[in-house]
Amino acid sequence: MAVTLYELQGADDRRFSPYCWRIRMALAHKGIVPETVPVRFTEKDKIAFSGQPRVPVVVDNGKTIVDSWDIAGHLEDTYPDRPTLFPGGRASARFFQEWANANLGPNISPLIILDIWKHLDPEDQVYFRESRETRLGRPLEEVSAGREERRQSLYDALAPVRGALEESPFLAGDQPAYVDYIVFGGFQWARCVSDFPLLDPGDPVHAWRRRMLESHDGLAGRAVGYPC
Amino acid sequence: MAVTLYELQGADDRRFSPYCWRIRMALAHKGIVPETVPVRFTEKDKIAFSGQPRVPVVVDNGKTIVDSWDIAGHLEDTYPDRPTLFPGGRASARFFQEWANANLGPNISPLIILDIWKHLDPEDQVYFRESRETRLGRPLEEVSAGREERRQSLYDALAPVRGALEESPFLAGDQPAYVDYIVFGGFQWARCVSDFPLLDPGDPVHAWRRRMLESHDGLAGRAVGYPC
Repeated sequence: MAVTLYELQGADDRRFSPYCWRIRMALAHKGIVPETVPVRFTEKDKIAFSGQPRVPVVVDNGKTIVDSWDIAGHLEDTYPDRPTLFPGGRASARFFQEWANANLGPNISPLIILDIWKHLDPEDQVYFRESRETRLGRPLEEVSAGREERRQSLYDALAPVRGALEESPFLAGDQPAYVDYIVFGGFQWARCVSDFPLLDPGDPVHAWRRRMLESHDGLAGRAVGYPC
Repeated sequence: MAVTLYELQGADDRRFSPYCWRIRMALAHKGIVPETVPVRFTEKDKIAFSGQPRVPVVVDNGKTIVDSWDIAGHLEDTYPDRPTLFPGGRASARFFQEWANANLGPNISPLIILDIWKHLDPEDQVYFRESRETRLGRPLEEVSAGREERRQSLYDALAPVRGALEESPFLAGDQPAYVDYIVFGGFQWARCVSDFPLLDPGDPVHAWRRRMLESHDGLAGRAVGYPC
């Protein structure tokens, strides 16, 4: 079994893409240790063979798969005898994914966007600032301003996660699964590049993040990033 | 097995509470046909024995349970040999519930609030208008104004549901379960009192609602309400 994962890389080998982390964790869940190929924002040529410009890209025994959702589905279909990524079904996991993409990412992004920029190599900094400022219509410094006050919005958005954690230690139940990796990707994204405290230590989501960092032999906790 | 369900009643015997519908469907899922006791807004004395003022209240062989989430859990614990309400686990279902309470209810409520009022008996109308206008700080007519334009907000909020329905016919998979009942409750709430079209016929959520209305021998579809 030879699996290669192309994943986003910042300065100091920070692997910070939330979508790549969903897949890093999903691979570990399936007991797969991939060869990883770092791809910086300005190194899109490395994944040109995939026919599109985004990571993660997985090559599994010669087969190329793009898009984190499709990669997760591929892993489940290809390795069905290993622990399932979807103990609650794929529809439920898709629900979590669409929720996270619409509610979690947009609430974390303004809190860490300047820190992302700070942790990129110089040529990537130029690309990142220009593309994001065009998209957002204002300087990264303005997007990032007042972030202390905006933590409340993230806290509020996490209400469904907090509810789920009243029922069990992980969103998927007694053990983590893909729904956990979906949500965790957002927090690991932040941790890799930012020391801004997204969560209060008393928040049940904080304790869950700790469990996630320790899961799969501490895979995520060992990655280059800030303590949290 | 004798189960009694106390549920909210409007004019013309419309049983419109979204939380009561979660439980009506959950009972059907477990193969239980309850005796139902209608409770109007101004008949809280009927459930005073439960020690709190909200429906649904279930009395199951002498045991009183309140709060829809606790009732669903009770049914699962008490009738474990019948089809499970939580095939994806309780944590996942809690996630759906907190999402629905924060995103679905608040987006449907302003679209139908005046229709709710119109479908109450006179003494309940007085109670409903007074309590809601106090809570919302303005007349029901104002809350309801411009609802055509506000359907987009409901459409956007349903993105996670739409994603899940790309994977399977129900949110729980091939068959409906409690996560479906949670979300469906909001639509049945509307259907019982309002002919305002919440969903476009081409929306996958529209087709899912149809399947829900037909499930359990058409239980929800037979209830007094408007076609949709």
